Amino acid sequence: MEILNTKVAIIGSGPAGLLLGQLLYKAGIEHIIIEQRSADYVSARIRAGILEQVSIDLLKQAGVDQNLNELGLPHHGIEILTNGEKYRIDLSALTHGKQVTVYGQTEVTKDLMHARDEAKLTSFYEANNVKVHEFYDLPYVTFNKDGQEYRVNCDFIAGCDGYHGVCRASVPADKIKTFEKVYSFGWLGILADVPPVSDELIYVQSERGFALCSMRSNTRSRYYLQVPLTDKIEDWSDERFWDELKNRLDKESCERLVIGPSIEKSIAPLRSFVTEPMRFGNLFLAGDAAHIVPPTGAKGLNLAASDIAYLSSALIEYYLKGSKQGIDEYSEKCLKRVWKAERFSWWMTNLLHRFENESEFDLKIKHAELTYILGSEAGQTTLAENYVGLPYELKAFEELKKVS
Amino acid sequence: MEILNTKVAIIGSGPAGLLLGQLLYKAGIEHIIIEQRSADYVSARIRAGILEQVSIDLLKQAGVDQNLNELGLPHHGIEILTNGEKYRIDLSALTHGKQVTVYGQTEVTKDLMHARDEAKLTSFYEANNVKVHEFYDLPYVTFNKDGQEYRVNCDFIAGCDGYHGVCRASVPADKIKTFEKVYSFGWLGILADVPPVSDELIYVQSERGFALCSMRSNTRSRYYLQVPLTDKIEDWSDERFWDELKNRLDKESCERLVIGPSIEKSIAPLRSFVTEPMRFGNLFLAGDAAHIVPPTGAKGLNLAASDIAYLSSALIEYYLKGSKQGIDEYSEKCLKRVWKAERFSWWMTNLLHRFENESEFDLKIKHAELTYILGSEAGQTTLAENYVGLPYELKAFEELKKVS
Repeated sequence: MEILNTKVAIIGSGPAGLLLGQLLYKAGIEHIIIEQRSADYVSARIRAGILEQVSIDLLKQAGVDQNLNELGLPHHGIEILTNGEKYRIDLSALTHGKQVTVYGQTEVTKDLMHARDEAKLTSFYEANNVKVHEFYDLPYVTFNKDGQEYRVNCDFIAGCDGYHGVCRASVPADKIKTFEKVYSFGWLGILADVPPVSDELIYVQSERGFALCSMRSNTRSRYYLQVPLTDKIEDWSDERFWDELKNRLDKESCERLVIGPSIEKSIAPLRSFVTEPMRFGNLFLAGDAAHIVPPTGAKGLNLAASDIAYLSSALIEYYLKGSKQGIDEYSEKCLKRVWKAERFSWWMTNLLHRFENESEFDLKIKHAELTYILGSEAGQTTLAENYVGLPYELKAFEELKKVS
Repeated sequence: MEILNTKVAIIGSGPAGLLLGQLLYKAGIEHIIIEQRSADYVSARIRAGILEQVSIDLLKQAGVDQNLNELGLPHHGIEILTNGEKYRIDLSALTHGKQVTVYGQTEVTKDLMHARDEAKLTSFYEANNVKVHEFYDLPYVTFNKDGQEYRVNCDFIAGCDGYHGVCRASVPADKIKTFEKVYSFGWLGILADVPPVSDELIYVQSERGFALCSMRSNTRSRYYLQVPLTDKIEDWSDERFWDELKNRLDKESCERLVIGPSIEKSIAPLRSFVTEPMRFGNLFLAGDAAHIVPPTGAKGLNLAASDIAYLSSALIEYYLKGSKQGIDEYSEKCLKRVWKAERFSWWMTNLLHRFENESEFDLKIKHAELTYILGSEAGQTTLAENYVGLPYELKAFEELKKVS
């Protein structure tokens, strides 16, 4: 058994864990990352692609915004297509100049891994049988790698290991409460090296179901279709995908649409899920380990970033100022923002998707809601201000900025 | 059989029918009102009590705003009580100075009946066996009164006879489509001659269910409690009502609450209901005959008024300018505003009431939605602008103003 000592053991090397590591490193706080998958696997996962400004600010704090600045595409609006008519939500005009940035989560992960390599920080990839212990007292983590057993003694464990991770699963059942909604449909997504159909994202509400025209860059498009969860990926040839996408688009978009072979294709289920609280003694949950949103509205990665803003700030406060306040407030602060993002994602999902068992009244109400939102400045603003990201409770974050 | 000839036969002498009659009279257009109930019954019904500015403008056009001006209470805000905390929505600040006016529907009805008496206009009360005929061609209405049979030949029939009326029921099934949602709870309301607990209405979201502190004047209060539809009015003594109201209020409101004997007490079911279209040849439906909203948000009477704004304008256009445009557009224009009000009423009802089979996730989302709305200026504005009343599609209404 090899024994290591550190201040913070981070479980999971996705964007949440990597970002936390980088922020702790900048503040001079020792930590180790432990990840059960390989580095190659982690850096290849295709995920979200829309960053809120507050997420970008945090990446800047972490010193990993060079590629983002160069390659990220600022978006000042989104389009909504309903009943064959396209409407634009002018995000920037409605939110005093805020915007979102198109930049793939895959790229964020790579940038963070690269920065971590440069700084020669310790990560264990392909760690087997990861376990978290005694987190209500003096916590430690155990795992095996290449036949060697490890024990990491630490002050805190950061559970950044996703929805299926070991951290949340290790919390005693009587200490945790979960809230969940499962949707009866999924998103069939394809990635293709073709220019996007529009400069901005198009959210499509149609009788045949939701669709989304998104992108990762000016030459790489990401398209999604709402499909029944019972559909299998083998059912969806590229040709069928493009045909169905055209069925849901307006004529003008169909004419502009450039199609090409998919380089990735998958069906993802949609889920709303929240864990309360998000701190258990000296174990913190962050990102997907604590909450899942359906992808409508692109809040998943941004919520992980806001958890890490609060968590890094709390740990910096603790180690550099000797204050436990941030730690004590972590769960409550995160959950306030989490529930607002959960509500927004649930609402966007409801508004734009077809559901089983919807009555004709329900459909009319949804149409009235979308018509109202699109026709009212206040209505548009509620969509825009949530889409660009509600402000953090800034005190902790401002202090983090001052420290690093 | 006595035969009468007129231009417009109005079925129903509620506020919609009476208001239409008054506006037609002001424009010099002949009409007759036919009502199955007695005048005493009609003028005693206790109904809504909140008027939008556009409704007041219309009553002014009809020349029946004297009492309203003297006795109506302008309200510039509402209060929302949730989780024991009270928040104020500043309606006027959020809507460029708009307001609502507290003035009972019962009073509106009396004022309109009084004006009608003064002008010596023809109304048949206690008309039995009212039937509408041939409204796709040359319409006429038949009924009996005091043993006499009547036939009223007319150009148009205005169906202002409410949800249970004969007009909608007379439309061939293949010409009409209805949309409906029935709620599993009702509103138990009492009227009492005690001063209101607050100068403004308090909408109460509580774990025990919704409550509303409303009023008809500075000395007459109207309170409501959400109750299961299975409850009977005999189950609710005044004492039990006041006790349960206190259970749902905050401490400060409980202390200020003045209780007293009820002078009216009833349980009303909640329903969302819309008829499409609202015109069938020469028969128009208006008000509750065409649509019902749950009372949350106080849109019922105001929607009836907006139907009458469009209908009176259309008939005036037809008779005074020879244009059928308003008649042809009646249904579409009404329904646009109807569905927005339906959405708002449904949303307010959902947000503030407890429902059967709500999951803990649903409750959390509702709490997040209310928290978001109350904490965001845009969110507050969406509530306020709907509450004070969305603008009419004004062209027809402006022309109406010019004509009368």
